[in-house]
Amino acid sequence: MTTDRPDQPSFAATDSGTHGETGPHGPPRPRTGVWLLGARGSVGTTVTAGWAAVTAGLHPPTGMVTETAPFAGCGLPPLADLVIGGHDTSGCPLPKRAEALVTGGVLPHGLPAAVHAELAAVDAAIRPGGPRPGEDRTDEEMIDSFAADLAAFTTDHGLDRTVVVNVATTEPVPAPGDDRLPPSSLYAAAALRAGCPYVNFTPSAGLRHPALADAVAHRGLPHAGRDGKTGQTLLRSVLAPMFLHRALTVRAWSGTNLLGGGDGAALADPAAAAAKNAGKARVLADTLGSVPEGRVHIDDVPSLGDWKTAWDHIAFEGFLGSRMVLQTIWQGCDSALAAPLVLDLARLVAAAHATGISGPLPELGFFFKDPDPGAPSDLAEQWRALLAFADRLRGES
Amino acid sequence: MTTDRPDQPSFAATDSGTHGETGPHGPPRPRTGVWLLGARGSVGTTVTAGWAAVTAGLHPPTGMVTETAPFAGCGLPPLADLVIGGHDTSGCPLPKRAEALVTGGVLPHGLPAAVHAELAAVDAAIRPGGPRPGEDRTDEEMIDSFAADLAAFTTDHGLDRTVVVNVATTEPVPAPGDDRLPPSSLYAAAALRAGCPYVNFTPSAGLRHPALADAVAHRGLPHAGRDGKTGQTLLRSVLAPMFLHRALTVRAWSGTNLLGGGDGAALADPAAAAAKNAGKARVLADTLGSVPEGRVHIDDVPSLGDWKTAWDHIAFEGFLGSRMVLQTIWQGCDSALAAPLVLDLARLVAAAHATGISGPLPELGFFFKDPDPGAPSDLAEQWRALLAFADRLRGES
Amino acid sequence: MTTDRPDQPSFAATDSGTHGETGPHGPPRPRTGVWLLGARGSVGTTVTAGWAAVTAGLHPPTGMVTETAPFAGCGLPPLADLVIGGHDTSGCPLPKRAEALVTGGVLPHGLPAAVHAELAAVDAAIRPGGPRPGEDRTDEEMIDSFAADLAAFTTDHGLDRTVVVNVATTEPVPAPGDDRLPPSSLYAAAALRAGCPYVNFTPSAGLRHPALADAVAHRGLPHAGRDGKTGQTLLRSVLAPMFLHRALTVRAWSGTNLLGGGDGAALADPAAAAAKNAGKARVLADTLGSVPEGRVHIDDVPSLGDWKTAWDHIAFEGFLGSRMVLQTIWQGCDSALAAPLVLDLARLVAAAHATGISGPLPELGFFFKDPDPGAPSDLAEQWRALLAFADRLRGES
Amino acid sequence: MTTDRPDQPSFAATDSGTHGETGPHGPPRPRTGVWLLGARGSVGTTVTAGWAAVTAGLHPPTGMVTETAPFAGCGLPPLADLVIGGHDTSGCPLPKRAEALVTGGVLPHGLPAAVHAELAAVDAAIRPGGPRPGEDRTDEEMIDSFAADLAAFTTDHGLDRTVVVNVATTEPVPAPGDDRLPPSSLYAAAALRAGCPYVNFTPSAGLRHPALADAVAHRGLPHAGRDGKTGQTLLRSVLAPMFLHRALTVRAWSGTNLLGGGDGAALADPAAAAAKNAGKARVLADTLGSVPEGRVHIDDVPSLGDWKTAWDHIAFEGFLGSRMVLQTIWQGCDSALAAPLVLDLARLVAAAHATGISGPLPELGFFFKDPDPGAPSDLAEQWRALLAFADRLRGES
Repeated sequence: MTTDRPDQPSFAATDSGTHGETGPHGPPRPRTGVWLLGARGSVGTTVTAGWAAVTAGLHPPTGMVTETAPFAGCGLPPLADLVIGGHDTSGCPLPKRAEALVTGGVLPHGLPAAVHAELAAVDAAIRPGGPRPGEDRTDEEMIDSFAADLAAFTTDHGLDRTVVVNVATTEPVPAPGDDRLPPSSLYAAAALRAGCPYVNFTPSAGLRHPALADAVAHRGLPHAGRDGKTGQTLLRSVLAPMFLHRALTVRAWSGTNLLGGGDGAALADPAAAAAKNAGKARVLADTLGSVPEGRVHIDDVPSLGDWKTAWDHIAFEGFLGSRMVLQTIWQGCDSALAAPLVLDLARLVAAAHATGISGPLPELGFFFKDPDPGAPSDLAEQWRALLAFADRLRGES
Repeated sequence: MTTDRPDQPSFAATDSGTHGETGPHGPPRPRTGVWLLGARGSVGTTVTAGWAAVTAGLHPPTGMVTETAPFAGCGLPPLADLVIGGHDTSGCPLPKRAEALVTGGVLPHGLPAAVHAELAAVDAAIRPGGPRPGEDRTDEEMIDSFAADLAAFTTDHGLDRTVVVNVATTEPVPAPGDDRLPPSSLYAAAALRAGCPYVNFTPSAGLRHPALADAVAHRGLPHAGRDGKTGQTLLRSVLAPMFLHRALTVRAWSGTNLLGGGDGAALADPAAAAAKNAGKARVLADTLGSVPEGRVHIDDVPSLGDWKTAWDHIAFEGFLGSRMVLQTIWQGCDSALAAPLVLDLARLVAAAHATGISGPLPELGFFFKDPDPGAPSDLAEQWRALLAFADRLRGES
Repeated sequence: MTTDRPDQPSFAATDSGTHGETGPHGPPRPRTGVWLLGARGSVGTTVTAGWAAVTAGLHPPTGMVTETAPFAGCGLPPLADLVIGGHDTSGCPLPKRAEALVTGGVLPHGLPAAVHAELAAVDAAIRPGGPRPGEDRTDEEMIDSFAADLAAFTTDHGLDRTVVVNVATTEPVPAPGDDRLPPSSLYAAAALRAGCPYVNFTPSAGLRHPALADAVAHRGLPHAGRDGKTGQTLLRSVLAPMFLHRALTVRAWSGTNLLGGGDGAALADPAAAAAKNAGKARVLADTLGSVPEGRVHIDDVPSLGDWKTAWDHIAFEGFLGSRMVLQTIWQGCDSALAAPLVLDLARLVAAAHATGISGPLPELGFFFKDPDPGAPSDLAEQWRALLAFADRLRGES
Repeated sequence: MTTDRPDQPSFAATDSGTHGETGPHGPPRPRTGVWLLGARGSVGTTVTAGWAAVTAGLHPPTGMVTETAPFAGCGLPPLADLVIGGHDTSGCPLPKRAEALVTGGVLPHGLPAAVHAELAAVDAAIRPGGPRPGEDRTDEEMIDSFAADLAAFTTDHGLDRTVVVNVATTEPVPAPGDDRLPPSSLYAAAALRAGCPYVNFTPSAGLRHPALADAVAHRGLPHAGRDGKTGQTLLRSVLAPMFLHRALTVRAWSGTNLLGGGDGAALADPAAAAAKNAGKARVLADTLGSVPEGRVHIDDVPSLGDWKTAWDHIAFEGFLGSRMVLQTIWQGCDSALAAPLVLDLARLVAAAHATGISGPLPELGFFFKDPDPGAPSDLAEQWRALLAFADRLRGES
């Protein structure tokens, strides 16, 4: 990176040891770390490849909410000033993962080659995750180790701050009475320990584990969650208010999701699916005031890879008991839908931290299935809350 | 009607000549006229039958927005205090029309019998419409005649005001250079002449005809339009903002509507369909900033009767150019969707008139495909504007 | 019934004790019994009401295969010469059940009144089923009792034969090692004992229970099964051959069924659903040579009543690995689809019996999800087999 | 090509001038020409690229009916013994066209490079088509010129015969009274003149033009058509018989097709769409005995490229007038569906010619929307006719 090409991405490897660098004409630009839990997964790889591609001007920032007009001038870190690293239990190099995503239709042909340097640099900044099979470290030891990774990354790259974002595979809902911290909460505890703002893009427990409640309250860090809203639930969060405001009675809302990839396999585990489905049902219950009839299925269909098909069938009742039906079929690529939102969230939470905002951020409910307490469930109201948050970042509210 | 049964509907026939009536315990209740242009059509008949059924407690007011909590206490005329009349060129009695709607699955079995008295009473208050085949009256003569009908209805029933609502079949878009007022505008001119607030629930010209512009400006009446938003466009008005706010690029938005009934036959006329489709495209253009690729078809399928099936196919692009698709299939009964909104609009515009509000009402854009100038196109913003309008009626804003 | 009105239905009550009756001009017409197991269920009631309505000329025989041209002249008993009875554990009178089916949209308004006499007559011929709660009879005693009911019905009405058709609710798949005969097999054993041809329109065990194998082999009766093919599987039996013959590779075939009514509730039991799904998967496996990826869900959605919605998603691969998708959405009324096929089967099996045909009837695979051994799985081939069977009944093959 | 690698494709360029070549161990292998009208279009390019890829073992022959078991041993020319050439008015080289099809998602990445030699060789064998803009040749001159191209190709490559296949863009239906031969018929006349068997994979007039009737009758060549059945009509040809055989009454059958690419643009011309739609309606009329209500739309949606989405809505009636609906959504790549069938047809018609079969081939109706007179319209019966044709080629019938 050279300061006379400010639109080029800064990435880890090329400037290792260069923190504190001073450009020819002034002080160094402040930079922000984005630490991906699950950095080598489909979403993590798409975040990194996409960030590199958009920063290099190879693609427009389609799908990135923070690149639209309403977010101009609210102090978000420029994409070019992000530095990406992460944890992962997989050792598969990012360039290879990116090629696999090309085969799966997630990334465009040629992209991995075009951003190979950036992929390799981020890959070098990925540290081993845990617990590993046969893990013999205690929870405390793992938390310490993860927190040390975060601190080293921040220091080594001279970052102002590092936002931790969980994009790892969905964990099963913990069995009742299980006292052990799940992996997502080990990482969340490490973020707290290292003073890092935290975002949970998955339905896993993360920072919401009861055992972390005290630490969360005392650390004074901004954090946001939970479970990114990318497809079926996104739709539900605009359709349910439509029925409500039009005084139409929803009788039954049924849904089936077909998907392959790692997510499909993980969600074939009923406990993991239960975590996912809780968020899907929540938007209906919160909006409509009660849970209508109907179930949600998540089927693993390996042939579909990272592409998801979601069918929803909504039986509703109108004037004089007339029975009507709305059906929706959503065919989308989850990783492509999630990745830009991950970048949005990292930037928004980084700006919140810079502004001194702490605690949960219900204003970011626009991005989540299961947002922080106090968030509205209607997407339109979530959008207004997000715009108000942008104003707050500008110091306008 | 007796004043000790305030939940019972008041209808035209039972109290003919009783205007100015005084209940045992006080002054007469103010009553409001609802004058339906096309009173014997599917929508008109469903309005009357449904109003009678809901007022009698036979059905809950599902689909009536003004019966939901946010509209309590804002001075709307109670359903029981509405008196319905109208114009129609058809002479088919309302009870018979209602039976036909039972056969078509629009009205529930038994309803026409249960509200036969009310149907017969409203039927008696329906005046012949025009122009008739071989009509020899001038436009002025017809306007005078229609206005006299409105005045007589208001006087005969001792009404505080009469709101005129156009629910007649969609007119073709006038040919360029055609100076003759279309029927919908003759009726609109009559409403102006008779001092009646006016609502246009169809895409026809009505009050928006350029020849009426001066009269509209000088009469100081509240009016609202145009083209009730009941199905496919309702959906579009929540889905288009979703794509916009999520920074997803809509590439193509295609739609096909299948419907029978009178509406299907009328819209098989390309000129009438053009009027209808203009509203459907408008919401996309207004929300997305440009019209995406794709066409809208309206097919007459007599077998489907008053039930409409609308398929929409939305091709959109996400992060890194990924191509995704949303499809929606809406199976609804247009008359059952429209009728409660007609009652909502009549009540809201009547309350506006009572409060001294005049001119176009963009705050009622929630109900329309092609709302009055200044209205937002996003359903959520339209909802907020409607809530603000309710506050204004309460004198709160 | 009088013999000079040969097109009118003959039903049980009006001619009790009149078997052997001789009309004014000749010998008695031979008549055929149809004994419905589950006569008061949705399918059973629709069979009886529909048979009465079609016989009386109130409705055309839509959906009845045996009323189409290819089956003319092959000796099927005329509809007017059927006499219906049955077993049921429910005591709810047929006329009342029929009214409930009107409310549910299965039967047209007015039909129960129009055929009240026939419904009442058949109702009088329904005998209590079993096992009842707290049943203390042995299996043998129940079989004897059911067989006695069949014999008495045949004798009392002077019938040439009585075909037993199982249209009762689907039974759970028996647990491994469970030696007790399930109810469907008790009835099947009774049919064997009483010398009645037998049809199993459900996925329950019925005559296929291993304990009945010897009796089936020795009784020399025609019998057909299993599990009527009315919707999703019907579609699959024409779509799967299309993919096969076009050399397109089916990668995944996923399905979701939403239905209410008794069937929805029964199939919410995973063991009952397993019985149902086995048939659905069978057609794919038999046609395609292997079971593709994908699951089938059956959800109980009480709001939908007897109307079923089935969504299928078929991911297939074409030339050069191109990935394509076919989706189907079927919205049908299961009882209305099943009932005419039940009448078809009763007539065909009765004619087989009259012709001296015995044993399983793979030629009737057209009607079943899980047909008798030797039947093709492709609907078109099943149709050809059925036409050949008609020829055989005519003595032409 | 060397004879010790019999599985490798033989293509035009590498053996120019080598006809009559003799391998080390015997006489030359007979080879068959495939002459594509529209060789540089999407279908033509996919045929050539796919033929090369399958012959080289890079892809399995998915979608090629003639590579399935029932067609073994019936004397079809092996894929490796085909030689491809053609006419086109476009001068864009095949390798470049193939790259464009990769971008459009029709061909897999890497394929154009892998078969570059074959693409280049076929490209060299493509002759200029016509009429060109400002064409000054008479019809006779053009026919002579095209016929000469065919004769030269056959001679130069030492081919036993050359089958001409029309895969060019759909022509508008000729205006009534237009005596001029449309381009498709000029080429068809050239095929006749050159003694080449002929296949029309498009809805254009081709050999069916009345002006060619005498020549067709006297030339004694096998020919087959018309309008390849790849998607919506394929489905209709299995679904319509299902409704028919089940005695269900189809009330309305409506369809909308969305597609981009050259085909979408061409079919935006109502006259071209009329040609296409005639075939789609034909299968319904022929199967159901009458044309149900409903229309078919073909919309040009450039964003969709060569991928087509077809929605069908079928309203049907069952027992006792019950109203039901089937909807299908087909998302396929027309070129990928068409190309293997083009190879199938070329091989089948070549074998017919070799066997001495001449005239129209209704036995190939399996492949066409608008098959030759005498063909059944039901896909299953067409399949049986095709199997019988294979037997005939084997000399078995």
